[in-house]
Amino acid sequence: MSISQRPIGHRVAIIGGGFGGLYAARHLGKDPRIDLTLVDRRNHHLFQPLLYQVATGALAPGEIAQPLRSIVHRNANTSVILGAATGLDPERREVQLSDGGPIAYDTLVVATGAKHSYFGHDDWARFAPGLKSIDDATEMRRRILIAFEAAEREHVAERRHEWMTFVVVGGGPTGVELAGALGEIARDTLRRDFRSINSPDARILLVEALDRVLPNYPEGRSRSARRQLERLGVTVRTGTRVTNIAEHEVTVEPAAPGDVVDAGGTTRIPTRTVLWAAGVQASSFAKAVAAATGAETDRAGRIKVGPDLTIPGHPEIFVIGDAAVQPWKADRPVPGVAQGGIQGGKYVSKAIRTRLDGGTPAPFRFQDRGDVAVIGRLSGVTNIGWLGPFGRTGGFIAWLLWLGIHITYLIGFANRLVVLTRWAWTFVTHGRGSRLITGQPLLPDIEEPEPPA
Amino acid sequence: MSISQRPIGHRVAIIGGGFGGLYAARHLGKDPRIDLTLVDRRNHHLFQPLLYQVATGALAPGEIAQPLRSIVHRNANTSVILGAATGLDPERREVQLSDGGPIAYDTLVVATGAKHSYFGHDDWARFAPGLKSIDDATEMRRRILIAFEAAEREHVAERRHEWMTFVVVGGGPTGVELAGALGEIARDTLRRDFRSINSPDARILLVEALDRVLPNYPEGRSRSARRQLERLGVTVRTGTRVTNIAEHEVTVEPAAPGDVVDAGGTTRIPTRTVLWAAGVQASSFAKAVAAATGAETDRAGRIKVGPDLTIPGHPEIFVIGDAAVQPWKADRPVPGVAQGGIQGGKYVSKAIRTRLDGGTPAPFRFQDRGDVAVIGRLSGVTNIGWLGPFGRTGGFIAWLLWLGIHITYLIGFANRLVVLTRWAWTFVTHGRGSRLITGQPLLPDIEEPEPPA
Repeated sequence: MSISQRPIGHRVAIIGGGFGGLYAARHLGKDPRIDLTLVDRRNHHLFQPLLYQVATGALAPGEIAQPLRSIVHRNANTSVILGAATGLDPERREVQLSDGGPIAYDTLVVATGAKHSYFGHDDWARFAPGLKSIDDATEMRRRILIAFEAAEREHVAERRHEWMTFVVVGGGPTGVELAGALGEIARDTLRRDFRSINSPDARILLVEALDRVLPNYPEGRSRSARRQLERLGVTVRTGTRVTNIAEHEVTVEPAAPGDVVDAGGTTRIPTRTVLWAAGVQASSFAKAVAAATGAETDRAGRIKVGPDLTIPGHPEIFVIGDAAVQPWKADRPVPGVAQGGIQGGKYVSKAIRTRLDGGTPAPFRFQDRGDVAVIGRLSGVTNIGWLGPFGRTGGFIAWLLWLGIHITYLIGFANRLVVLTRWAWTFVTHGRGSRLITGQPLLPDIEEPEPPA
Repeated sequence: MSISQRPIGHRVAIIGGGFGGLYAARHLGKDPRIDLTLVDRRNHHLFQPLLYQVATGALAPGEIAQPLRSIVHRNANTSVILGAATGLDPERREVQLSDGGPIAYDTLVVATGAKHSYFGHDDWARFAPGLKSIDDATEMRRRILIAFEAAEREHVAERRHEWMTFVVVGGGPTGVELAGALGEIARDTLRRDFRSINSPDARILLVEALDRVLPNYPEGRSRSARRQLERLGVTVRTGTRVTNIAEHEVTVEPAAPGDVVDAGGTTRIPTRTVLWAAGVQASSFAKAVAAATGAETDRAGRIKVGPDLTIPGHPEIFVIGDAAVQPWKADRPVPGVAQGGIQGGKYVSKAIRTRLDGGTPAPFRFQDRGDVAVIGRLSGVTNIGWLGPFGRTGGFIAWLLWLGIHITYLIGFANRLVVLTRWAWTFVTHGRGSRLITGQPLLPDIEEPEPPA
């Protein structure tokens, strides 16, 4: 019952519309020999590197997301399907969807990215939301803003202190950027908004198990990031493991000076707001692909691919971005950053066309463009190897570089204009325009003080 | 345990941070004799006249909302409380909150606005969401976008037709603007986005029980609006009552040529997307206030107030905006538009200060600034009485006037810049930047065709 009657070309199915899938789709969809189907559970491409800005009220969700259909609508060979890929039949070359399908392919591109991992403690998810989707970001924003609102109304000092304590778990780029933004919100944005509390008194802890933040950066950059965080009032606790997360507390070890250690020797940090930026694992579909093809995976469930990013024994299945262990250096695969997905997508797009020409694609080579993280207002760190010593900046220059790079890669020209407008305004006024509490608007019940025993 | 130790002034409590409450709060909060508490269930003021643009993907939620705290943060006499007012004790002069409180007042301002009314058919709400909050708007947006996605994937022609049929109930300004925006989306924005469906084929019905759309406008304006809607492909059905809304259909009477009338004589319009823009009623708190004070209400539960907008017998309780029947002409109260709330709020702010000066406030006089509605791209109707015949425009001039007025009243300078940027971009590209599906991202189960009997 298909409406289109044109002859069918080489059928490429791309699962996932993140950086990897999108950069693959943009070029493949222009090749007349190809029939492309792009499948995603969401109707939009999300610019994940700025997601923490939605979670902290600096940007609105629509400003960092763009409908997939509108991105590829000029590509007549491309169909976009809103659906969740759940299984793979590599013999019949079909992808199963949860609600319809299947989708037949000649070449499959798995670009389904990563989801949170709580390292086997899935019960922590309820108390410590992570940051992967727009809905995650608005939920995080809701919790952060509700905490200040509840503290304003709370009469019991102990509980007010719990509301005013924020724990960010994980000292990678997301954790560092979240903690920095929290510091800025507490010390700057909300400073004059409350009457009973003093928002700069908020206690913000960044907990990292390794011995430094930004462990993928050189040590000097980690030290610089730590200093900048501390200047924003963030308490950085490296070498500290989270051992449990429950409704009103996080337990860590070892204890630090000032911690409350209970009789059993457990260090409890009373808090109502825990943000998870620690672990990721491959998506469920990547796991299904590994199971169906017998592909090897790493501990996070990411598929180990060959030099051409295909599954060994399955040259028709590419796996790219965070779903894959993309080869790079002998001791280190491509890190889980946007550039990994972008370059994987571009490579696959070229490799498939090279094959249709009868050639053999050259192996994938990751070009490290460098890393940049922003820490609060007008400040950040960069680590851009190919710039030599000039690539290791901090402070304002890092912030400027960060701004330029993010605006360049943001999809959609209107979004670029709007985001620049917002940032310019934030820069001048110290405000944050998008501090909405949506979803459940009300406070959790504020308990009455218990009667003295 | 209050932290503030300064002497307590005249305590004013404002319930509701919409147009009425906000315009009352802005000036009262600057008077050193007054202690002001502003209570709202949401943490933001919402610019409701542009809510339909969020529902149709033209603007992002954060662009038409502004945190209440940041609007009044310069007013040292103002406390903002996030909470839901549930009851009133007029003897003790206290407002009860659902989760804490009570809030004591010397003067109370009830500005809690309106909510949807399904005219006694609350079961319709599930199938026909209304448009009052950001969450309503994102839900409406989700349903509209999902309908096109589902139609693209649906193989059964009958069901595809159901997904491609949109029914807007109610021909007031919200219904007209929603239907116009739907027409624009189908004919323009999405035109090139799909492969199996042709989005301009979407059937958009605007159903109104009265004999014309925009019944508050002069008849000529109603005719102009109808023509403009029809040009956008909207089928306008005036004089048509909705008798039932169920999961996959709306039933109406009387039938029109082309309708399918079943054996029992019922006209059923098969559709998966129904948008409610018909009835409103006073908020629950207004009803609680009426019950506690014995105030008279109209059929929609709005409180009948005296010439000074207070409840007869309760000079300390003002009711303004959509929660009240604000007096205007002999045969007609102030209509439920933004201007009613803004002018009510400004009046109350002045009246309270006049009383503190020992004076008696002059009666409230509503100044009709006129109405303006936009219908699709670059088109609309106005009815601005004080401009004489020049006030009755249509088409492009109406659209320009609409733009100027909305930008002027939008709260927050950053929002004005961002919204102008988006509109300029939409104007040039015919795009809509904020077409995100959030919340439940997936399609409802697409049923398999039933086996032939």
